[in-house]
Amino acid sequence: MSHSNQDASPGNPHRLEALLNARSVAVIGASADPAKIAGRPIAYMRARGYTGAIYPVNPSREEVQGLRCHPSIAAIGQPVDLAIIGTAAAHVEGAIREGIAAGVKAFVVFSSGFAELDEAGRALQKRLTALAKAHGVAIVGPNCLGIANSRSGLLATFTTALESHALQQGGFSFVSQSGALGAYWMDIVLRNGIGFSQWVTTGNECDVDAADAIEFLVADPDTKVIGLYIEDIRRMDAFRAALDRAARAGKPVIAIKAGSSSAGAAAAASHTGALAGNDALYDACLQQYGALRVRSLTEMMDAARLLLHNAAPAGPRLAVMTVSGGAGVLIADASEPLGLQLPALKPEVAQALVPILPSFVHPSNPLDITGNVLQDTPMIGRAMQALATDTDTHAIVLFIGMMHSIADAFVQALSQARSHVRCPIVVIWVGAMDSSIHALEAAGIPVFLDIPQAMQALARGLQMRRTRAQIIQRPEALPTMPVTDGGRSLPTLSEWDGKQLLASQQSVQIPAGRLLKAGDALPPGLPYPVVAKLQSDQLLHKSDAGGVALRIQDAPSLQEAIERLHELGAGLGIPVQGVLVEQMLPFDHELLLGLRREPRFGPVLTLARGGIEAELDPDVVNLLLPANADDIARMLGRLRCFRLLQGFRGRPGADMPALARRIADLCEWFLQQPLRELEINPLAIQGSQMWALDALITPMAMD
Amino acid sequence: MSHSNQDASPGNPHRLEALLNARSVAVIGASADPAKIAGRPIAYMRARGYTGAIYPVNPSREEVQGLRCHPSIAAIGQPVDLAIIGTAAAHVEGAIREGIAAGVKAFVVFSSGFAELDEAGRALQKRLTALAKAHGVAIVGPNCLGIANSRSGLLATFTTALESHALQQGGFSFVSQSGALGAYWMDIVLRNGIGFSQWVTTGNECDVDAADAIEFLVADPDTKVIGLYIEDIRRMDAFRAALDRAARAGKPVIAIKAGSSSAGAAAAASHTGALAGNDALYDACLQQYGALRVRSLTEMMDAARLLLHNAAPAGPRLAVMTVSGGAGVLIADASEPLGLQLPALKPEVAQALVPILPSFVHPSNPLDITGNVLQDTPMIGRAMQALATDTDTHAIVLFIGMMHSIADAFVQALSQARSHVRCPIVVIWVGAMDSSIHALEAAGIPVFLDIPQAMQALARGLQMRRTRAQIIQRPEALPTMPVTDGGRSLPTLSEWDGKQLLASQQSVQIPAGRLLKAGDALPPGLPYPVVAKLQSDQLLHKSDAGGVALRIQDAPSLQEAIERLHELGAGLGIPVQGVLVEQMLPFDHELLLGLRREPRFGPVLTLARGGIEAELDPDVVNLLLPANADDIARMLGRLRCFRLLQGFRGRPGADMPALARRIADLCEWFLQQPLRELEINPLAIQGSQMWALDALITPMAMD
Repeated sequence: MSHSNQDASPGNPHRLEALLNARSVAVIGASADPAKIAGRPIAYMRARGYTGAIYPVNPSREEVQGLRCHPSIAAIGQPVDLAIIGTAAAHVEGAIREGIAAGVKAFVVFSSGFAELDEAGRALQKRLTALAKAHGVAIVGPNCLGIANSRSGLLATFTTALESHALQQGGFSFVSQSGALGAYWMDIVLRNGIGFSQWVTTGNECDVDAADAIEFLVADPDTKVIGLYIEDIRRMDAFRAALDRAARAGKPVIAIKAGSSSAGAAAAASHTGALAGNDALYDACLQQYGALRVRSLTEMMDAARLLLHNAAPAGPRLAVMTVSGGAGVLIADASEPLGLQLPALKPEVAQALVPILPSFVHPSNPLDITGNVLQDTPMIGRAMQALATDTDTHAIVLFIGMMHSIADAFVQALSQARSHVRCPIVVIWVGAMDSSIHALEAAGIPVFLDIPQAMQALARGLQMRRTRAQIIQRPEALPTMPVTDGGRSLPTLSEWDGKQLLASQQSVQIPAGRLLKAGDALPPGLPYPVVAKLQSDQLLHKSDAGGVALRIQDAPSLQEAIERLHELGAGLGIPVQGVLVEQMLPFDHELLLGLRREPRFGPVLTLARGGIEAELDPDVVNLLLPANADDIARMLGRLRCFRLLQGFRGRPGADMPALARRIADLCEWFLQQPLRELEINPLAIQGSQMWALDALITPMAMD
Repeated sequence: MSHSNQDASPGNPHRLEALLNARSVAVIGASADPAKIAGRPIAYMRARGYTGAIYPVNPSREEVQGLRCHPSIAAIGQPVDLAIIGTAAAHVEGAIREGIAAGVKAFVVFSSGFAELDEAGRALQKRLTALAKAHGVAIVGPNCLGIANSRSGLLATFTTALESHALQQGGFSFVSQSGALGAYWMDIVLRNGIGFSQWVTTGNECDVDAADAIEFLVADPDTKVIGLYIEDIRRMDAFRAALDRAARAGKPVIAIKAGSSSAGAAAAASHTGALAGNDALYDACLQQYGALRVRSLTEMMDAARLLLHNAAPAGPRLAVMTVSGGAGVLIADASEPLGLQLPALKPEVAQALVPILPSFVHPSNPLDITGNVLQDTPMIGRAMQALATDTDTHAIVLFIGMMHSIADAFVQALSQARSHVRCPIVVIWVGAMDSSIHALEAAGIPVFLDIPQAMQALARGLQMRRTRAQIIQRPEALPTMPVTDGGRSLPTLSEWDGKQLLASQQSVQIPAGRLLKAGDALPPGLPYPVVAKLQSDQLLHKSDAGGVALRIQDAPSLQEAIERLHELGAGLGIPVQGVLVEQMLPFDHELLLGLRREPRFGPVLTLARGGIEAELDPDVVNLLLPANADDIARMLGRLRCFRLLQGFRGRPGADMPALARRIADLCEWFLQQPLRELEINPLAIQGSQMWALDALITPMAMD
């Protein structure tokens, strides 16, 4: 039953059935003026032929926009799936209560004046949330632009984007935390003939949120590609689960996340905190679940164009045909930095092309078929089929410019080729006519108007397929980790105390060391060279304060260093725990490893290049936990310094699989411990071994 | 006299007057069919009202497209500035000879079958070059798409881009080494209502080349912005001079240079060669002369849109107004990585805004003026003027979405604001109507359809202004350096020999060192620690072969190292000059410094980060010589490791001005020497001192 409402908990997409597939809509405070907020949905739905029933509700009118008007929801006397509310904030709660009493299952609240305004509004909004929970209804908004379903013509929105365009169905759906961005998106998909399936602006998210909407779209048969504009996700576990399900269902998610600029990022005490700020974690989250992050609606449309036509390449190898040599070079130029390749033609492909091409064209990649196509347009189809005989070709890119006189023959040749070629075909057509674009896209061939957009979309499509392949390899969705917001942070431990704690695991080793208190005699047989480090839980950044003496070769030097460090501690006026004397170990590589419990994201692993280099130009990757060794191996592969870690120019490489396993084990250990944060910096690496040369641990009270 | 032809040498823009400002045009082999190559120019010029005379020439016709047809050029009996030739290649030379005899001053040759085809075609083309030189005429092509001038309606081209669009005048001009790219450019500027002034496709460049065309456009009063598509520049000195003049004339150049991908880059023996490949030098050249390099025509149009409306900001500080909070965040996100800033409003500006803005809007940057503008549109103009009272604001960016109902009021408010605001105003209008775009741009306000395009254009405009300011600071154009292509390279010297040569200058110091032959006794009093390096002119990469022993602390170790190195040399079977023993110097920073004479570009300075890091992820800048210390200081500033060089986290900084002066002096020295290449790697730096720790010098025979 599409109207089933048996489980009203957030995350259950059935709850949104009555909303987005509503068969009957009441409009509270319905206006006779089709330009008013409470008049527009009626005007839009009537003009676009909404397939369900529309019930205007307004006690002061008999008739609204040619429809019989009802004095109240209760008076309608028919089942109502959805009520649209655009009244003043003060009347919203009452309207919802009346609706619930009359059996209404879902509400769209346009009204503003809630949590976005002031404390009173926040209280008002909390009451709506409570109503939704108590009665199992779905409430969208308040302070939103509404929802739309292009198939049924359900237009529970007052966006002006619907004023100038006809409704058009398509496989693209959109979820937006901003009404304005939602409106722009709809304007663009309708103006460019892309069309859409479902459209949801979530506003203040008193009940239905972006995660709910994604869940619904994963199950929506009309939705092929999901667009997303987000600013802040509160139910991160539900969001991650929804992204995971979208990836498994083969529905690409393309997301704009606002707020990447550092202006918004808070200062952080630890290096890890600086490297894994809020936006970086959103980034990690989207990447981890195979969602493409783009910067603008234009980029979203480009990516969607490719994905809606199933033209994401399975690999990086492209065969390129152009009608101009210059364009071929520009395509090669644009491909390289994106990781796309134009490999040389295989000999058998080159041979197969010879009888197809004009005599003066040399088979190559990119292949310049020249303006000769004006004389022999069907040649394009034959050449494409020849290129496609190489099963290692992951996509064929064809560049055309203008050539309007042969546009129809072009479209015909390409459409025929489309049915004979297994890999995606992508067309870049400078100066294309709209009619040609529509005809080619109807045949399953996406068309771009210039080179960089097309190559960027191909690179993104490839990235999306690769991540998806990793996601569906897992037997099931990753469990999301409980966010331990309640655990109060305790003071950060001294390095010595932290390392004592760290000694309870075996993934990362601790260098042999001794804590020497003031006046302690030097123990005999120390493994020189050693390092001496002042220990105090109030001196966390020891090096900066001069609290570390490196490369001590003998006992007298050590004695001297210890005395100096104790003096330093006394001078700083901090409680001194002692001086940690540790063996100095040789190692090949160093990283920073951070593990943190984040209020919004739960436990997070951060790996970064250490040292001064990394501070100049951070080289960092973040991963939301849990994660297995494969995830971590891939994560290491995304560090810019990965080639260095693998061994480069005589510097020995690390045993990467062993390293990934050890880090995965350390993550496991961390998840069991009552710790807020663990930062190992540097993490020294040699072969398959890792040592914590320094460690900062912040425990958490489990109260 | 616009038709003066007194100086026919390349580089004299007067030579192109008769071409691009032709007052009369003969079309050789004129066709009655307006779709034929020799029919189209006539049809285009007649339809677009060419202001000059058109003379069809064809012995077999009395009349062509309604015009009287002449049996030969000579028979025209009137002065002819320009002749268009589209005949078979074999007849081109004859046609040009006839034209020259009849007093024709310029020729556009569409015909292909010249150097692009085969050896015979190359010979044919050389004869055209000789004709141009001998008779002082200008020849465009062969194998080109022709030229166009929108003011006079001179359309000496057969591009189909003119078929579907009306001619439109504008300040944008284009020079293209590809006919196809030229056609696409024209299609885009006409379709988007940008318009153009001059359009030149140079084809095989038998005579008129891209440098000539740029020179002409610098002098052309209708040209404000110059677009460029280049693949290969042969007269680099003329090209550099033309770019320099364009910068001085305040005419921005926006260039696409095809061929950045490494597929095309040849393997190089020295590190410098690898770091300063052909494309990198084009890049350096464009940057040095203030030309913007873009990747596509779309990006070129975006940059041109800004520059045509004089909207390049003088600095990075933007004031941003939006009708949606989300858009403001996205603008901040897009700005940061581009070096654009959204500083907080000054208190006086914020105060001035309070009475202008709705009560619920808090003055800030970005400023969300909300949908309230629908009620009070003129408020936008008042808010803008308030923002502009801060003279530190370098541009005002306004974001709008749709709002078609108030489009006219919007345009009016903005147009009025434009005349009251000193800094550039840039509008981003998602879903803008064409009519609004045209009205705003007519008022001097460029309009972009999405955020990234606008911010990228602003960043490019800022970069262009900054470079231009540097260029016009110089008293005159830099002399270009003779390219010493003729100098035969001699074998590369051993480090010892190279350093002996280098000792004749004082900019870079040589560590104290001794060359010890086999069996030489160790000299007393060596300044340990020392380094010992095997010397052979056949062992240039000593470290890789194990030919270097570092950090030798005492005489016995040195003796041992020297013996080992001599054994290594014997084992490698190379002639051994000796072992160079050098003092090991402490230093803070190291760079690679390369100086090379390049066949196309002349002498070039390369600075790069040295060491293993730099090989993983090159950090390199190139500069065409000559250059002064200021140029070199700016060049150092473009290295990613610049912050490191300045001193970072306790590592001492270098004396950057002293360093720049020393490097400038070294360049001067290099320019005087008969050297093909000098590579100092590493160049050790401490304070204001530089040492050549290793040096590879390749002399040149001056025969």
